[in-house]
Amino acid sequence: MKAVVFDEKLHLSSKHPEPVPEKGEALVRVSMAGICNTDLEIVRGYMGYKGVLGHEFVGVVEAAEGRDDLIGKRVVGEINLHCGKCAYCQAGVESHCLNRSVLGIMNRDGAMAEYVTLPLNVLYALADTLPNGAAEQVPDNEMVFVEPLAAAFQVLEQMDFVPGDRVLVMGDGKLGLLIAQVVNEFTPAKVTLLGHHKDKLALAKGWGVGTHLSSKGRPDAPYDVVIEATGTAEGFQQALSLLRPRGALVLKSTVANWAKLNLTAIVINELTVIGSRCGPFKPAIKALADKKIDVRLLISATYSIDDAEEAFKHAQQKGVLKVLLDMKP
Amino acid sequence: MKAVVFDEKLHLSSKHPEPVPEKGEALVRVSMAGICNTDLEIVRGYMGYKGVLGHEFVGVVEAAEGRDDLIGKRVVGEINLHCGKCAYCQAGVESHCLNRSVLGIMNRDGAMAEYVTLPLNVLYALADTLPNGAAEQVPDNEMVFVEPLAAAFQVLEQMDFVPGDRVLVMGDGKLGLLIAQVVNEFTPAKVTLLGHHKDKLALAKGWGVGTHLSSKGRPDAPYDVVIEATGTAEGFQQALSLLRPRGALVLKSTVANWAKLNLTAIVINELTVIGSRCGPFKPAIKALADKKIDVRLLISATYSIDDAEEAFKHAQQKGVLKVLLDMKP
Repeated sequence: MKAVVFDEKLHLSSKHPEPVPEKGEALVRVSMAGICNTDLEIVRGYMGYKGVLGHEFVGVVEAAEGRDDLIGKRVVGEINLHCGKCAYCQAGVESHCLNRSVLGIMNRDGAMAEYVTLPLNVLYALADTLPNGAAEQVPDNEMVFVEPLAAAFQVLEQMDFVPGDRVLVMGDGKLGLLIAQVVNEFTPAKVTLLGHHKDKLALAKGWGVGTHLSSKGRPDAPYDVVIEATGTAEGFQQALSLLRPRGALVLKSTVANWAKLNLTAIVINELTVIGSRCGPFKPAIKALADKKIDVRLLISATYSIDDAEEAFKHAQQKGVLKVLLDMKP
Repeated sequence: MKAVVFDEKLHLSSKHPEPVPEKGEALVRVSMAGICNTDLEIVRGYMGYKGVLGHEFVGVVEAAEGRDDLIGKRVVGEINLHCGKCAYCQAGVESHCLNRSVLGIMNRDGAMAEYVTLPLNVLYALADTLPNGAAEQVPDNEMVFVEPLAAAFQVLEQMDFVPGDRVLVMGDGKLGLLIAQVVNEFTPAKVTLLGHHKDKLALAKGWGVGTHLSSKGRPDAPYDVVIEATGTAEGFQQALSLLRPRGALVLKSTVANWAKLNLTAIVINELTVIGSRCGPFKPAIKALADKKIDVRLLISATYSIDDAEEAFKHAQQKGVLKVLLDMKP
């Protein structure tokens, strides 16, 4: 099958072996996949991962032993594949399973391929996830955003926002734009998006989010909560300086490199820093079905899997938002 | 009066002007003061502070306009002097007052002098603080620990500990030893102190705290909570690696210098980092009165104020715990 493989270098393999589902897994024919910043970091060596890339996808089940009801159904899937046995799984915190593999990121081939296998317990059959099959109406190029949108919803799992809260989202990339929308739409907080790009801030403005262009100087600090999604260590340091005493910094950026930092402000102002990673799929699926979150404007380009290498080059350019890979022949 | 002054260099001034209490302030004759690591950092240039040093003290009120009842009473005092008017004061978070000065640290002469003035609303008259005047029995060289002990108690204000929690306190200096005692004594957590010094870990062992000598390799991670009191950025980085997923790092060390750090673990393991500074005086005073916390073994030496420069040299030596300054003539 065709597959986008990273193995010291990125390349499209046309004869990659088709995966074979193990017991409890489904074989999914992938319809569409998204290129995430994590994929771009992997291509730069982050995580030391080798294998098929891709963890944002929509597909259709072709085989699922003992679950004929799933065959032909459109699905999305969580990316942390858990053992179900360790202390974290037992405590219901499967995303931190001690024995986990992560789709296309750690010890598990990803979804930028014609086929992917996934355990049944991380699959969401879209026809069955919401009442009246509401999710089934959302096209692939929107539903492929469920995984990053779930990561944005994770902020709501970790933080309570109250009326009057001033929230700054730092970074007008894909994730920052999703987070700004989610916090603006689903909490009573007053949200400002800080970014470098006029065109992206204009998108946010269209959604009713406040905006601040970085080149216009320091935003109107202090904030109660800063959500850091710039993908840079400098963003972290600046975030500390923009918070009120006892304010909270939600850290979304995984910055692979080491950077010179000064943590004094955390202690003096008794700040809280909260790391935030993957999130819940159901509210993300529902938000797309309810048209509460706009992802269509985040699509910069869609390529055929045959042009995957070109798609990655495009995605690596500054200012580009989501680049999608269409897997259908 | 005699005063220990930092003004580009540390020196004992014998003719420092006596402070004059303003309205709402008391004039306190200082009996004893403690040298804190923050004092040692100030002497190295931290905070850019110039003036009389000292924020750990016990004294006796000599004048207090309209409060004759206080005269002759033994007192300790909080170090964050607040305006009472800003949003933080109004919200009861006086320690983060936007207009605050900090005794001997920021915009306010400290207590390493024969006299200090302090607002009445930050003073604790020991005879009146606890029922039956229980605090009055605690000698000066123990009561002088109230301020750093309050900082240790702050951890209990910020964190809930439940039975089974594994807590690692990093750093066997003065603050680490106090924190290890407080968490061990007042919470159901199982506490381990990590440090470089066999003699200090032996103190902790005597209090029933588990210990781990750094040179024996990595402690038995993961921990649910790590409390960082090493005073080094390396301590912060190591702490991140010792926590379980979704664990909490309480950061006590104010490290003035910039250091190369990598924050990836915060995001991947969804850690929480909580800055922790000054704390509540009442539980600290009560713990000393109830003899629940042992501070006597933390005293390395006591000097007369006349030998203050020598006392600072002593305090700066590696492995030395608390050095006290006796202010009485």
